[in-house]
Amino acid sequence: MNNSEQGRFNYDGLDVVFHEKARLGILTSLLTQPEGLSFNELKRLCALTDGNLSRHLTMLSEKGFIKIEKSEHLGRTQTTAIVTNKGRKKFAEYLSVLEQILADALPVTQKGNAAVEG
Amino acid sequence: MNNSEQGRFNYDGLDVVFHEKARLGILTSLLTQPEGLSFNELKRLCALTDGNLSRHLTMLSEKGFIKIEKSEHLGRTQTTAIVTNKGRKKFAEYLSVLEQILADALPVTQKGNAAVEG
Repeated sequence: MNNSEQGRFNYDGLDVVFHEKARLGILTSLLTQPEGLSFNELKRLCALTDGNLSRHLTMLSEKGFIKIEKSEHLGRTQTTAIVTNKGRKKFAEYLSVLEQILADALPVTQKGNAAVEG
Repeated sequence: MNNSEQGRFNYDGLDVVFHEKARLGILTSLLTQPEGLSFNELKRLCALTDGNLSRHLTMLSEKGFIKIEKSEHLGRTQTTAIVTNKGRKKFAEYLSVLEQILADALPVTQKGNAAVEG
């Protein structure tokens, strides 16, 4: 890709649903656990409050990126979040934009303070 | 790092100054051009409006991550934005968190696709 192109650094594929820090953590942790994670596990892994986690899970579920399952466990309702195939596919597209950003930026940062190219 | 750790997927280093999509594009394009980019070049490369670009440049400049230089060119004032050493350093720290996210997520998405195909 030519670095002088119109919109070259626009990164249009950075869908705000995935780009938001908390949801980025939620999706990444769910990816690593295909069988799902309970509400309390997610809360701990992502260091989120009940209210924040609830809000993000509802949004991701409404978008069809995760599904929420309720089960009874020792007489208490347990909520489990599981990433859907759609969520996995769309999140992979988002991750490919992050890869592009790193491909654009890292060679330059690694050159760092060395000679500036002419 | 253990995947069950408290806050494992919190990604606390995702500084919102860099994580915002437009500023992510601005910083990445400036990194690739150590001698700086003019306001109009940035506007085109990042596909931003005058107002949006101005607002983000002011913020990045106030944080000390870029410097803004004004010069006269053919009787008109030209604005050039240049990434500072501080900006380069802090942005590199931000990029290392993106690398961590990809390191966490990509092996899983790749396994995922293989399993679906297989």
